[in-house]
Amino acid sequence: MRAAVMRQRALVVDDVPAPVPGHGEVLVRTLACGICGSDLHLLRHGDRFRENFAGATSFRMDPARDVVMGHEFCAEVVEHGPGTQRQLPAGRRVVSVPVTVRGGGTHSVGFSNDAPGGYGEYMVLSERLLLPVPDGIETARTALTEPLAVGWHAVARAHVEPGDVALVIGCGPIGLAVVNALRVADVHPIIAADFSARRRELAVAMGADVVLDPATTSPYASFAELSARARDGAPLPLDALTGARALRNGVFFECVGVPGVLDRMMAGARRGCRFVVVGVCMEPDRIRPALAITKELSLHFVLGYTAAEFAATLRGIADGSLRTEPLVTGRVGLDGVAGAFRELDNPEHHAKILVEPWR
Amino acid sequence: MRAAVMRQRALVVDDVPAPVPGHGEVLVRTLACGICGSDLHLLRHGDRFRENFAGATSFRMDPARDVVMGHEFCAEVVEHGPGTQRQLPAGRRVVSVPVTVRGGGTHSVGFSNDAPGGYGEYMVLSERLLLPVPDGIETARTALTEPLAVGWHAVARAHVEPGDVALVIGCGPIGLAVVNALRVADVHPIIAADFSARRRELAVAMGADVVLDPATTSPYASFAELSARARDGAPLPLDALTGARALRNGVFFECVGVPGVLDRMMAGARRGCRFVVVGVCMEPDRIRPALAITKELSLHFVLGYTAAEFAATLRGIADGSLRTEPLVTGRVGLDGVAGAFRELDNPEHHAKILVEPWR
Repeated sequence: MRAAVMRQRALVVDDVPAPVPGHGEVLVRTLACGICGSDLHLLRHGDRFRENFAGATSFRMDPARDVVMGHEFCAEVVEHGPGTQRQLPAGRRVVSVPVTVRGGGTHSVGFSNDAPGGYGEYMVLSERLLLPVPDGIETARTALTEPLAVGWHAVARAHVEPGDVALVIGCGPIGLAVVNALRVADVHPIIAADFSARRRELAVAMGADVVLDPATTSPYASFAELSARARDGAPLPLDALTGARALRNGVFFECVGVPGVLDRMMAGARRGCRFVVVGVCMEPDRIRPALAITKELSLHFVLGYTAAEFAATLRGIADGSLRTEPLVTGRVGLDGVAGAFRELDNPEHHAKILVEPWR
Repeated sequence: MRAAVMRQRALVVDDVPAPVPGHGEVLVRTLACGICGSDLHLLRHGDRFRENFAGATSFRMDPARDVVMGHEFCAEVVEHGPGTQRQLPAGRRVVSVPVTVRGGGTHSVGFSNDAPGGYGEYMVLSERLLLPVPDGIETARTALTEPLAVGWHAVARAHVEPGDVALVIGCGPIGLAVVNALRVADVHPIIAADFSARRRELAVAMGADVVLDPATTSPYASFAELSARARDGAPLPLDALTGARALRNGVFFECVGVPGVLDRMMAGARRGCRFVVVGVCMEPDRIRPALAITKELSLHFVLGYTAAEFAATLRGIADGSLRTEPLVTGRVGLDGVAGAFRELDNPEHHAKILVEPWR
């Protein structure tokens, strides 16, 4: 099959052997596959990536061998392997958590030498993890299930309640997915911050109530002001003992993944804030614990999603509660993958680029 | 009154003006007051301490003026100020959260130029925060209410359940208070680690089921082994899909407060562990966020206690559920305070030294 292959730290288009479905597996044809920031990381900082994920046994990557990346996909059933139930016929569109189970072990699809991902024409997936895509939904929208599930999971782990005020730092694909899920969870206001005007525009499209540019406006001052108001915008009452204004609960989402951001957020937070760290910072970071201690902050580091959250995300896309419309900002064939990786460095141009191997 | 005064970064015994009770305040005589690690910090690293606690408006310390430290006290009522209810007669023993309310603002007793603490003969406290000490309980035991409340609060914030396995890193007074509260919460096993043989002995006295010396035994390997067993010691069942052994939930308590400890704990933790950070690290720290992300760790930074937790701790001391017996390892008069501060550097000698100003 044709695939955009990661080989010797570069992306090349080549013919590689098509994967063969094993026991319980299904061969599928890739219809669309999003490019993820993790893929950019892996291509550029492969050693660090492997070191950081050394504990994830489903990542089985020998850097000397080819890897076909791509884990945000929609595909269609081609052929069933041995030991399958065959309830989804050939031609049926499916999505899946990007994992396949073989012999009691798991392989991350797109992060394993032996489980090629969506930057190739074909993949093999575990039949029992397949979710059929309802008819009438555009393929491109369902390819967003995986990245939107990341935001869904982050909001689920935050245990948000309608009285909360949310601050989202960073409006790349992850931050946008968090805003999307916060809107569905009925949190208001949702405050979102990014240096990029284009990304702030996308955050508004996803449901942010307030967007701001940290270069000119402090996210933390805005948060303090807005959290002193009830959901109807009226000021909250003063405390009789201290004279201070009552405040709504704050939940901060770190969606940048760059050293220094967490410490700045801790400095800006007020007492009792809870943080959800969704951005994947691959480098060591410096924090001042006394900031977190004196404010009794809690930090929830999250990754991925559960199978149930993944399925709920697909339902949210299908019923329209999760927004997908403005997120796909580019589409390329296999020949365009390397160029798309370079394009994604510029936040003014793109949110999500889809690879369509059949193009 | 006589007091051990912090003046120009040194402790000196001197005559200072006795405090005068204001509206709603009561003058009390100090019976016993424990020396806390925070006091050692303040004496030695005053600038950093004030910087870290700059957000705590109840800390009102001008370093050019005297401070009488001491916030872990038992006292007796001497005289009621104006606007008091006078329900506790003179001579009645009391404890209190170390805060007094004046004109709508709060002063931390022992951390404020104008609210002298228990290293002096007299203090003034807010009448409505006083808790009467039940008869028949030794004064020295009730002076432990404050430090034991810190452990009580940490365990409350951990939301521990009987199925959890706890690992306590560091067995100074805070770690010992955590072990004490964990035992009351019926968590087993409680694993406690400290380099000091004396402190490990105290941890056993407080209720630790397993103690170990990190110099010779990995706390994390011990945790992994013990968390694979049910409460009756039988191995937990294997998972049918992955073949891995089911595990009980882990909760790690950081009770050291020194840079580097948090990162080592994150490296040693397994997926889904929650951390409670009770040790007060005053310096910047370096962490690898990828460790926390890939394991989905949560970190709860805590400080102090609520008034309700403080009262519950006093009840726990009174009814014997919280152990106090081995914790008081020394008693000094005001002339002995400076020497006691030096003694406390050596973990082989002391847990808690009480100051008795009337000695």
